[in-house]
Amino acid sequence: MPSLLLRNIKTLVLAETMPRAYVAGPDMSQLPLLNDAYLLAEDGRFAAFGPMSECPDRADQVVDAGGGFVFPSWCDSHTHLVFAASREQEFVDRIKGLSYEEIARRGGGILNSARRLRETSEEELLQSALGRLREVEALGTGAVEIKSGYGLTLESELKMLRVIQGLKAETAMPVKATFLGAHALPPEYKGHREGYIRLIIDEMLPRIAGEGLADYIDAFCEKGFFTVAETEQFIEAGARYGLKAKVHVNQFNSLGAVPACVQRGALSVDHLEVASEADIESLKGSATMPTLLPSAPFFLSDPYQPARRLIDAGLPVALASDYNPGSTPSGKMQFVVSLACIKCGMLPEEAIHAATLNGARAMELERECGSIAVGKLANFFITPPIPSVAYLPYAFGSDLVERAFLRGEVVADKRRGGIS
Amino acid sequence: MPSLLLRNIKTLVLAETMPRAYVAGPDMSQLPLLNDAYLLAEDGRFAAFGPMSECPDRADQVVDAGGGFVFPSWCDSHTHLVFAASREQEFVDRIKGLSYEEIARRGGGILNSARRLRETSEEELLQSALGRLREVEALGTGAVEIKSGYGLTLESELKMLRVIQGLKAETAMPVKATFLGAHALPPEYKGHREGYIRLIIDEMLPRIAGEGLADYIDAFCEKGFFTVAETEQFIEAGARYGLKAKVHVNQFNSLGAVPACVQRGALSVDHLEVASEADIESLKGSATMPTLLPSAPFFLSDPYQPARRLIDAGLPVALASDYNPGSTPSGKMQFVVSLACIKCGMLPEEAIHAATLNGARAMELERECGSIAVGKLANFFITPPIPSVAYLPYAFGSDLVERAFLRGEVVADKRRGGIS
Repeated sequence: MPSLLLRNIKTLVLAETMPRAYVAGPDMSQLPLLNDAYLLAEDGRFAAFGPMSECPDRADQVVDAGGGFVFPSWCDSHTHLVFAASREQEFVDRIKGLSYEEIARRGGGILNSARRLRETSEEELLQSALGRLREVEALGTGAVEIKSGYGLTLESELKMLRVIQGLKAETAMPVKATFLGAHALPPEYKGHREGYIRLIIDEMLPRIAGEGLADYIDAFCEKGFFTVAETEQFIEAGARYGLKAKVHVNQFNSLGAVPACVQRGALSVDHLEVASEADIESLKGSATMPTLLPSAPFFLSDPYQPARRLIDAGLPVALASDYNPGSTPSGKMQFVVSLACIKCGMLPEEAIHAATLNGARAMELERECGSIAVGKLANFFITPPIPSVAYLPYAFGSDLVERAFLRGEVVADKRRGGIS
Repeated sequence: MPSLLLRNIKTLVLAETMPRAYVAGPDMSQLPLLNDAYLLAEDGRFAAFGPMSECPDRADQVVDAGGGFVFPSWCDSHTHLVFAASREQEFVDRIKGLSYEEIARRGGGILNSARRLRETSEEELLQSALGRLREVEALGTGAVEIKSGYGLTLESELKMLRVIQGLKAETAMPVKATFLGAHALPPEYKGHREGYIRLIIDEMLPRIAGEGLADYIDAFCEKGFFTVAETEQFIEAGARYGLKAKVHVNQFNSLGAVPACVQRGALSVDHLEVASEADIESLKGSATMPTLLPSAPFFLSDPYQPARRLIDAGLPVALASDYNPGSTPSGKMQFVVSLACIKCGMLPEEAIHAATLNGARAMELERECGSIAVGKLANFFITPPIPSVAYLPYAFGSDLVERAFLRGEVVADKRRGGIS
C-alpha cells in the first residue's frame, strides 16, 4: 500500500471535505482553498489533507511542494486528439484570406482529416495520439474525453475507437470514448445523406456498442453538417444502446439544438459560441453541462462564448480544450483557463472550477476526478511558488504545471535538474 | 577553441550565406531554409553550416538534432522584465468590469509598479528579474532589450538600470538597457509636469549616461502620459548623450509621434496598435523599425497591430513581447509569433523574420544575432520533429523550444530525461 505525502503546499486548491457533483452560478466563484497544507495519497487515491501543523510524519514517499500551489488535474471533456496529421497548411491558407468554403473546396477541413486517417494504420494513429496524450499529461490533464469522427466509414470509425481503447491501456488517467460518426457527411454520400445517417444508426452504432468501444455519442449539429432533427435521431439511437449524448451545438448558429439536447437528457452541449435566451432558459434545471471551448474562437477569430450570461443565469459551465488539427491545435488547459478569463469574462475561480470539477461532471467522472477529495484519484499538479490563484490565468504564456502526477505517481517534472 | 557540431537537422531556418541587416516588404515572406543540414559552432559563434552530406566528422561536442528544426534564437527588442511584483489583482479588477481609469484611481497601473519598485531592494529586483530572464532563455530568447521606467525617481531609475547591468553579467545573451524615465508622470509631480521633464533631462539623463547605464532612451507618448512635443525633447536630449531612441507610440492613439520619431532618427517605434496612412508614409525609406507587440492587445482585448498594411507598404516589421506585469505578463516569443499569424495576418515566414533578424536590428544587434550566419553568436534552439515552419505558430499552446543554446552552450533541455 504505497503512500505519497506532499509537504509544504502553500495553497491546496479545490480541497473538498464534502465533495460536490458540480458547481453552478454564484458558487463557481467560491473556490475552496487551504493554505499551508499537506496532502496524502495512498494506493493512487487521495487519503487525507489538512494543515501542515497536522502533517503525518512518514510515508513511503515524501515530496516537498516547495511552497507551490497544488491543483487537482484538469478534466478535459472535449477533444479530438486522435488524428492522422496536422493541418497547418489550412492555417496558412486562412491567413492568405481563403474562406472556410474555399479551403473545403481545396480538400481541407474535417474531410481532409478523414482522408488522411483512412490512409493511416491503427498503429501509427496510436503512436501519434500517444504523443499528444503524453503532452497533455505533462500539461496537467488528468482525465480526458476523446472523439472519433475522422473515420466516417464503419472500418475507420472502428479503427479510431480502437485507438482510443489502446490509449486507455497506456495512461493512468481516465479516458472516455465518444462516437462521432456524425461529424461531417463523407463525400461518397453527397446527395444521399439519408444513406449515411442509416449507416451510422443501423450499422456503426450496433457494432460499436456491441464491442463496447464508446461511452458516448456525439453529432456536429450545424448548418452544412447535421440538422437538429438528425441530431435528435442520433441521440435517440445512442440511448437505445445506453450511450448518453455529448453534442456539438451552436458553434456558428443557434438552430434549436440546445433545447433538443436538454429534452433528451444530453450529458453536455459543447461549443456555444452562440447562445440565445431560449437556449439558456432550456438549460436551467437540467442535468446537461454547458461546455465552452474558447481555444476554438481564439484560433478561428470567432466571437467568444458568453460565459458570463450562462453563469449569471445560475448555470454551471465546463471548460475543455477541443484539441483537434483544424480549429484548435492545442490541448493546453492552462491556456483555456486564461482565455476563459481574458476573453469570456470568467473569474479565475470560476474558470478553475469549470476546467476541473465541472469538466469531470461532463464525463460522469465527478466521483473520481475534478477536486481534491478523499477517495478520488490522486491526479494533481504542483506549480512553482506563485502569489495567488489568479496568477495562473494571468500568466497566459507560462507553463505553471511544474510537476504532474497521475494516481499518485509523477508523470512530468520540469524543474531544472528534475527527473522524467 | 571548443567546437559544437549539430547533426541531423531536418531544416535549418534562416541560414544566411550573405547576411542581411534586416528584411522588409515582400522579402519577409522569403525565409531561407536548408534541409538535411549540419551546423558547426566554434568559440560560441557559428562557424559553418551545410548539407549533412558535407558534415564534418568531428568536433569537441556532437549533438544530434534528432530530425528537429533549428531556429536562430528569438530577439526580443521590447521588454520591461525588471519589476517588483505581478499585478494579477488588476487583471481580476478588469474582468469585474473596472475601467483603466478606475484601476488607476485604486492605485493600479504603472504607478502601482513604481510604488512597489521603490520599496524593493536592488538585490530582490535582480533575483526576480533573473528568474524571468532564465524563463525566457528556456523559451528560446537569445537577445533582449529591457527598460527602466518603474522607478520614476533618480534613485529608483538608477536602481533599475543597475539591475539590468547585473543581468548582463548573469546571462550569455546580449542585453540592451533602455532608460524610460518618461513612462508615466509620478504622483509627486501632479500639476507640475515640467518639473519631472526637467528632472529627466537635466538630472537623470546626465547621471545615467555618465555611468554608462543605458544604451537607449524611450518615452510613452500617449494621451494621459507624454505629448509628442515632450517626446521630441526626450529624443533630442538623449541624442546629446549618444542614446538613440526606441519610443512607445500609437498604443491607443495616433498623435503624430511616428513621423516625429522618424525625423529624429529613432531606432524603433513600438506598439502601433493604431497606425494612420501618414504614420506609414513617414516610415518609408527611414531607418526606424516598426515594432509590433501583439501580446498587449491580446491581454487588453484592444485592436491588433495592422502588420499587413505595414508589410504591404514595403516596410520591415519587428515583433517583441512587451513582457511587463500590467499589460503583458508573458515573455513567450513563440506565442508572439502565433498571435502575429493568427491575429495580425502575418505569414509564418514573415513573423519568424520579424521575431529574429528584424528584432535584432531594432537593438543594433543584427551583426551579432537574428540569423544563422558565420560569425554571429551561436544562439539557437532545436524543436522536436515538426512538419514545417508553419507548424510553429500553428501549435499556439505548445512549447516547441525543446533545447535552447546560447553561445554554443545548452541553457535548457526539456526532453524527457533531458539535462538542465
